[in-house]
Amino acid sequence: MKVLLVYAHPEPKSLNGSLRDFTVERLERAGHVVQVSDLYAMKWKAPLDADDSVERLSDERFYPSRESKHALENGLQSDDIVREQEKLVWADAVILQFPMWWFSMPAILKGWVERVYAYGFAYGVGEHSDARWGERYGEGKFAGKRAMLVVTTGGWESHYSPRGINGPMDDVLFPIQHGILYYPGFDVLPPFVVYRTSRIDDTNYAQVRDALGQRLDELWTTAPIPFRQQNAGAYTIPQLTLRDEVAPGKAGFAAHVE
Amino acid sequence: MKVLLVYAHPEPKSLNGSLRDFTVERLERAGHVVQVSDLYAMKWKAPLDADDSVERLSDERFYPSRESKHALENGLQSDDIVREQEKLVWADAVILQFPMWWFSMPAILKGWVERVYAYGFAYGVGEHSDARWGERYGEGKFAGKRAMLVVTTGGWESHYSPRGINGPMDDVLFPIQHGILYYPGFDVLPPFVVYRTSRIDDTNYAQVRDALGQRLDELWTTAPIPFRQQNAGAYTIPQLTLRDEVAPGKAGFAAHVE
Repeated sequence: MKVLLVYAHPEPKSLNGSLRDFTVERLERAGHVVQVSDLYAMKWKAPLDADDSVERLSDERFYPSRESKHALENGLQSDDIVREQEKLVWADAVILQFPMWWFSMPAILKGWVERVYAYGFAYGVGEHSDARWGERYGEGKFAGKRAMLVVTTGGWESHYSPRGINGPMDDVLFPIQHGILYYPGFDVLPPFVVYRTSRIDDTNYAQVRDALGQRLDELWTTAPIPFRQQNAGAYTIPQLTLRDEVAPGKAGFAAHVE
Repeated sequence: MKVLLVYAHPEPKSLNGSLRDFTVERLERAGHVVQVSDLYAMKWKAPLDADDSVERLSDERFYPSRESKHALENGLQSDDIVREQEKLVWADAVILQFPMWWFSMPAILKGWVERVYAYGFAYGVGEHSDARWGERYGEGKFAGKRAMLVVTTGGWESHYSPRGINGPMDDVLFPIQHGILYYPGFDVLPPFVVYRTSRIDDTNYAQVRDALGQRLDELWTTAPIPFRQQNAGAYTIPQLTLRDEVAPGKAGFAAHVE
């Protein structure tokens, strides 16, 4: 199988760097083909802006989604964006690996999402009608592909527990797992999270590595998070609220998981 | 009073650009002093990396938090970071204004947070003991200052309602409001959110502008979101989970609001 690893850490000699090298080796040994987008090494341009296409629809006013649509449809996207889109289309599975900084992904990775996820590619796909609200949340360009987060954090696991001060890890990651991965159609696997990174020494590094290795071995068999499909009946359209009979009385992120 | 507006949109002739200009004018007319950090216009460097200090602690290995601490303590931070920190110290209130892209802030603004929020400035502040876990979540450098988000989104309000498919807006913004603003001590006001931006025309722009104007007029009197202070008794230390008697039976982001 083909795996794209999108990796965002500035230092190769870091815990993240070690886990990245381990991931590539483990997957290749199992016979998979791996491509790595090492965003810092690539000096990835983070900000989405008017330079993202080689010829604009309007020089009067930069309207991000319209320019993105125009550039995708007319082959006017900048080369760095096209290359990443080709990797996404190529891959059977995508892993996003990053240190959690301020409760989200590093800016350089956020900028990869914003620029590579073009209109007509990752959003603005499909018809909007009384029965369907585009192909998203369970449908879309990446349907049939798998995705998984590999995340490191200095915080303790208890800080991210159901009553922990940072909020439950599932909820902290929901905007990424549901909003960035499930939205364009990926089947999203449970995340692999390393807590309390400052305490990782030679002894427990081996434990972390082995646990990650097992997750990589099971990349094709692990059950995805059962997010609810948008157009399969659970939601009213176009309000996109859960129908009364679905998860009655529940609200918040967890209500969108079956 | 002194207000810092940190603004992240690539096009001045946009809805965001209009609301920014209106905000500055409204606040100045009321006698306040406003500074704007227009990140796209400043060509703000988004990725946090080894170039963020003029002289490194270690050339062997770039360890972000250690280098940040070393640079802050020894006056070695790059000038662009120092200037933004001075604005934050100067301000009585901070407004972050941005279009919501992929359920979070644009990469360029995330990179502002990562680089300006230095170790010893916005995190790594205060003692860690059995009674206190640093000065954070209600204490810290920005205690006594106010902060507010001004956010635009193409999605409908119902899509962000308690049972809406994107998740409740309060939860989508929690990692920012609680994790980025309350963490270093800001009193966080309820956000000002503009939904369904593609439908904003001359008629309802006036409504949006007037509603924002009212929020700006009440910037000093609006009650902040009552997030729970970390070191005031609601949490066990160092596990940082809510004590059993606090919000019994509740879990998730909402449990951290009184």
